[in-house]
Amino acid sequence: MENRQVLIDSLPDEKLSTDNYKLVTTEAPVPGDGEVLCRTLLTTVAAGSRAGLQGSASYAGAPQTNIVMNSHGVARIEASNSDSLKVGDLVTCPTGWQDYSVHAAKHCQLVSDDIDLAHYLGALGTNGLTAYFGLLRVGEPREGQTVLISAAAGSVGHMVGQIAAIKGCRTVGTTSTDEKCGLLMRDLGYDAAVSYRSPDFRADLKAACPDGIDIYFDNTGGEVLGAALFRMNEHGRIVCCGVVSQYDTSHPSGGPKGVPGLLVNKRIRMQGFLVFDYLKDYDKARAEMKDWIKSGELKPVNDTVEGLENAPDAFVNLLGGGNVGTRIIKIAD
Amino acid sequence: MENRQVLIDSLPDEKLSTDNYKLVTTEAPVPGDGEVLCRTLLTTVAAGSRAGLQGSASYAGAPQTNIVMNSHGVARIEASNSDSLKVGDLVTCPTGWQDYSVHAAKHCQLVSDDIDLAHYLGALGTNGLTAYFGLLRVGEPREGQTVLISAAAGSVGHMVGQIAAIKGCRTVGTTSTDEKCGLLMRDLGYDAAVSYRSPDFRADLKAACPDGIDIYFDNTGGEVLGAALFRMNEHGRIVCCGVVSQYDTSHPSGGPKGVPGLLVNKRIRMQGFLVFDYLKDYDKARAEMKDWIKSGELKPVNDTVEGLENAPDAFVNLLGGGNVGTRIIKIAD
Repeated sequence: MENRQVLIDSLPDEKLSTDNYKLVTTEAPVPGDGEVLCRTLLTTVAAGSRAGLQGSASYAGAPQTNIVMNSHGVARIEASNSDSLKVGDLVTCPTGWQDYSVHAAKHCQLVSDDIDLAHYLGALGTNGLTAYFGLLRVGEPREGQTVLISAAAGSVGHMVGQIAAIKGCRTVGTTSTDEKCGLLMRDLGYDAAVSYRSPDFRADLKAACPDGIDIYFDNTGGEVLGAALFRMNEHGRIVCCGVVSQYDTSHPSGGPKGVPGLLVNKRIRMQGFLVFDYLKDYDKARAEMKDWIKSGELKPVNDTVEGLENAPDAFVNLLGGGNVGTRIIKIAD
Repeated sequence: MENRQVLIDSLPDEKLSTDNYKLVTTEAPVPGDGEVLCRTLLTTVAAGSRAGLQGSASYAGAPQTNIVMNSHGVARIEASNSDSLKVGDLVTCPTGWQDYSVHAAKHCQLVSDDIDLAHYLGALGTNGLTAYFGLLRVGEPREGQTVLISAAAGSVGHMVGQIAAIKGCRTVGTTSTDEKCGLLMRDLGYDAAVSYRSPDFRADLKAACPDGIDIYFDNTGGEVLGAALFRMNEHGRIVCCGVVSQYDTSHPSGGPKGVPGLLVNKRIRMQGFLVFDYLKDYDKARAEMKDWIKSGELKPVNDTVEGLENAPDAFVNLLGGGNVGTRIIKIAD
């Protein structure tokens, strides 16, 4: 049985390009004892994976070539040597960018089809959990506060905005174009939106946050972080979730002015987190998110691209800000 | 009655110098209703006051000239129009750099002479409370952890080191010279010390912190902060207390590399604070600090300079790293 795989062919010098990947066809693997063969149905394209191509400074460890691009996905069991999973079961597992993969059954999580399967990679997957724990546990929002979110239309950002709104906050998003600003307010429920590429970005941000910023959920670092620091209110919180402005380069920029001086003067808490630290509370968070989706309070957006062969292009485009919501590659029905 | 006063004569362009001050003699003020006349006995010289000469970016507000240099002090009541204080009482109050000052009695705190009066400006004053709340409330030390402290011989730093040791932590200090490094270990109880001016500073810091850094108590910002970030352990805390490396210049440097990237990867919390936010717990903290002093667990160092006329030079020298412990100007017995 043929297995198409997208391999990391080379590491990017500067910006990632589709040339850094190659599509190969191999023989599908055979499950051993306690293992299952998984047919990938849906898989993710995540900005955070770019860090894994950047070397040892990243939490993802040292980069490698000639391996299948890693990703999480939803798969259907095609063959099983385990009592715990049977053929036809639906699971989430680290599929990678390929048609078939083999995993120990215990590394697959059984899911039900009572909800759009793509949500398991979005709101109920790492992105949604990141939004949930980052905002609620690190940001600690209170009703009436202003929450600024960078990469606000992104896989994590668009859910942070909606969860902040559920908590009674005023939400302001930054994104890459005026067109996406319109979309943030029209489709994603933001109260205000600002393009960070505008020559008047700092003035626009000030106008969009007349009462200052209580929580900045930072997905980008860079210019937005620098500007947000100067608009933070006393005792504000900066949730350091990601540095997408710094991923797609081999020369990350220096730190923002105002650190640490403004942190002292305004008693700001700036805190990095990784979602994995909240593992023990995943089930509780997923249950609450599922309730919000079913009640219509949370409307996660999944941005689906058809075809495994289009994954590299979808990733390059994502790093350039081309996505709205969680970008998912559909590989099979 | 003559009143010698040290006025701010001009604002520093770059480094502060004694020329920015002038000594004048005026008539001592007369207390009004509810007020007291205070004879300054001891007064402080504090690095944080430098920020007040730097303009509106500081929490101290916009700078002014031709005013008495502000400072806290210990004074004796010389005349009283208040029922709550009598002649001869000892108080702490915002004396400024001058022989006499008038205050509303309610703005003076009565103190007792059962302990060296200088402690009221050190361990039991703003410096000691800053060390106490910054380390214990923001840093949250746990037994066996490594605490790095910059400006480790300074008015706040030398007490942070001792409180961390009381809490069972390993303490490492940075300071300006090898000579002061010796003093940190010999006289102030540090387990290790590093000179930030050494050409091998980063390697020395690594060697001094073989288990990484759990808490960095940052009094300086600048190079020490930049280096410490790369040695922080996962879930480490950076207590942003002051930016003395940035005070004595009109061109503060940019922020440290590694913010926000390293904060994310290592889940570091970086938090600014001002001691005034803990006002309601001052009495409790002072009582605990007084117990530690009386039991000999805490040995605060007061670095006393004789004579009001020497205050400007003592301040310039302090900003250059010349002090050990809390620098206090002795004005009268």
